[in-house]
Amino acid sequence: MTQVFNFSAGPAMMPREVLEQAQAELLNWQGQHTSVMEVSHRGKLFMELITQAEKDFRTLYHIPDNYKILFLQGGARGQFAAVPMNLIGEKGKALYLTSGHWSATAAKEARLLCEVDEINILAEGEELKIGNLDFSNIAEQYDYVHYCPNETISGVEIFDVPKVGNAVLVADMSSNILSREIDINQFGIIYAGAQKNLGPAGITIVIVREDLIGKARKATPSIWNYEVQANSDSMINTPPTFAWYLCSLVFKYLLERGGVKAAEKRNQEKAQLLYDYLDQSDFYHNSVAKNNRSLMNVTFTTGNDELNMKFVREATEAGLQALKGHKVIGGMRASIYNAMPIEGVQALIAFMEKFAAENR
Amino acid sequence: MTQVFNFSAGPAMMPREVLEQAQAELLNWQGQHTSVMEVSHRGKLFMELITQAEKDFRTLYHIPDNYKILFLQGGARGQFAAVPMNLIGEKGKALYLTSGHWSATAAKEARLLCEVDEINILAEGEELKIGNLDFSNIAEQYDYVHYCPNETISGVEIFDVPKVGNAVLVADMSSNILSREIDINQFGIIYAGAQKNLGPAGITIVIVREDLIGKARKATPSIWNYEVQANSDSMINTPPTFAWYLCSLVFKYLLERGGVKAAEKRNQEKAQLLYDYLDQSDFYHNSVAKNNRSLMNVTFTTGNDELNMKFVREATEAGLQALKGHKVIGGMRASIYNAMPIEGVQALIAFMEKFAAENR
Repeated sequence: MTQVFNFSAGPAMMPREVLEQAQAELLNWQGQHTSVMEVSHRGKLFMELITQAEKDFRTLYHIPDNYKILFLQGGARGQFAAVPMNLIGEKGKALYLTSGHWSATAAKEARLLCEVDEINILAEGEELKIGNLDFSNIAEQYDYVHYCPNETISGVEIFDVPKVGNAVLVADMSSNILSREIDINQFGIIYAGAQKNLGPAGITIVIVREDLIGKARKATPSIWNYEVQANSDSMINTPPTFAWYLCSLVFKYLLERGGVKAAEKRNQEKAQLLYDYLDQSDFYHNSVAKNNRSLMNVTFTTGNDELNMKFVREATEAGLQALKGHKVIGGMRASIYNAMPIEGVQALIAFMEKFAAENR
Repeated sequence: MTQVFNFSAGPAMMPREVLEQAQAELLNWQGQHTSVMEVSHRGKLFMELITQAEKDFRTLYHIPDNYKILFLQGGARGQFAAVPMNLIGEKGKALYLTSGHWSATAAKEARLLCEVDEINILAEGEELKIGNLDFSNIAEQYDYVHYCPNETISGVEIFDVPKVGNAVLVADMSSNILSREIDINQFGIIYAGAQKNLGPAGITIVIVREDLIGKARKATPSIWNYEVQANSDSMINTPPTFAWYLCSLVFKYLLERGGVKAAEKRNQEKAQLLYDYLDQSDFYHNSVAKNNRSLMNVTFTTGNDELNMKFVREATEAGLQALKGHKVIGGMRASIYNAMPIEGVQALIAFMEKFAAENR
């Protein structure tokens, strides 16, 4: 098989070992002579699968007992609506901290459902840099404070957790869940679409503190009502069983390789290698402040649109796929989630050196 | 490989040829050396896949040009909420025709969002039988009229389309979509979760007449706003790409075998074989009126709970899987969707004969 490396921002590459297992047992899961996608979600074997998957996910991410884990449909964009539906109460409004496209999109969706105050947390200046994160003096006016700790489009990551006093902090971790260790207790809700670090597109994980369950407005659809789903093992309707199964394999894969702690180390090594190369280069440029450089999405540009297009074309021919930056900012983007091996980053840097030498 | 037949009500069996193709190309789709679940939904190859999938689905089901086809997340239960969100307008209320568990559940969910009138369309009497379906004198008081033409739990199917004058008729066809030919023009909206006749769990098809698009209330989540999704190729967020891909393979599989017309003929043959056997048996009993017997879900009982349990246990041992009836009504249920070959029904009947002889 030709060696390729897939830098897609999402749906992103999955661990090869996971796909190989899925392939091997696609027509005969657990000796049943049927596919895992053909069995009842309420059957004994599938129930065992989800029980183990939850256990593995709790172990991986050190999730305390007072948090429920839900496996839902609708993606992070579904949760953009579900969060206000479930959390808006007496105070009637939410605070959205915006740092780029996704946090702003979450705020826009919430405005369909409640009053929203929005604070841009990017600091002034040429570099993309996160400014002050202390909102403890105002946060308690709000039913919750929402932010997105990793902006995939610009490659900006927020490593410090915003200070919100006793207010409820909600984080969209679609693009950096399980990529580094965090203290779950700092969050009221964490949600993430699966298609970057967890599994395939089509399943969404919600980690929700128990005291936040049971506050949903009447008009909340059942499939997004945290109380309804928490009381139904996330099975108020037929769940996306195959996607759930693949997530369960990814959890096992990570546990066997040292958990999130080891994944964080690998991710830091990969990112460091690429940022170090960018910093010594006079051909490529990354515009994110060092303290906010994403471990997951590394953006760079030659400063020339035609050259960028040539880079993406020739990289693709060389087996380095999906490096085109998001259309909003152009340039290039290497998404190096958990499943990307360091060999992929090394191959990318080798290609970047060659391309720079040929085109300077 | 041991021969088994999987009679699961959903997630249900898929065509073996489809699973074999998915298995063969799971790690190398379209010569890309990546899985279809690892590529961008906005990439050229995936966009070609969805364009062809829509074309094939339109051909299969004879869908007129003035209907849009959406591929969404959230299942039919998601649409239980999305339909009122998108359709409730001036009249402020909807009429739900109930014939069993699923139509009643749809009505219950709609009550979270609007005023609902409910009419039980089951006729009086011992047999499960659909009564009068002419609502043309009252239907236009409502923003829409909703029904479920196949109730999977009881095995009741409604072959006549309710008369609703010029009102908008909405149908939950989760369990009988693509099973027989219908006249799409009689419907405003048809929706269906995929996991019975279309593909795996985790994707939902909505067929919506264009004039019904653009009426959603403000508080409608973007991922379920028909206008937003129709304007975004059903990609306002990352769609469940692998499930969509599998649906595309199922559509091709059906087209290569004569389309829905041929599938309907096969389904009638399968159901006839099983109902004929039940009718001549004094050991098993089906309680649905002949005109409302489902082509998809055939329910039967020995009239004895212990014997039913023994039947299910021994059938499973004989490779006839998932025949246990829904807990609400007990007994047995053979779900014989499009993917079930006639050999599965023949094997079931042979087992039923043997079991009856041994246990009468």
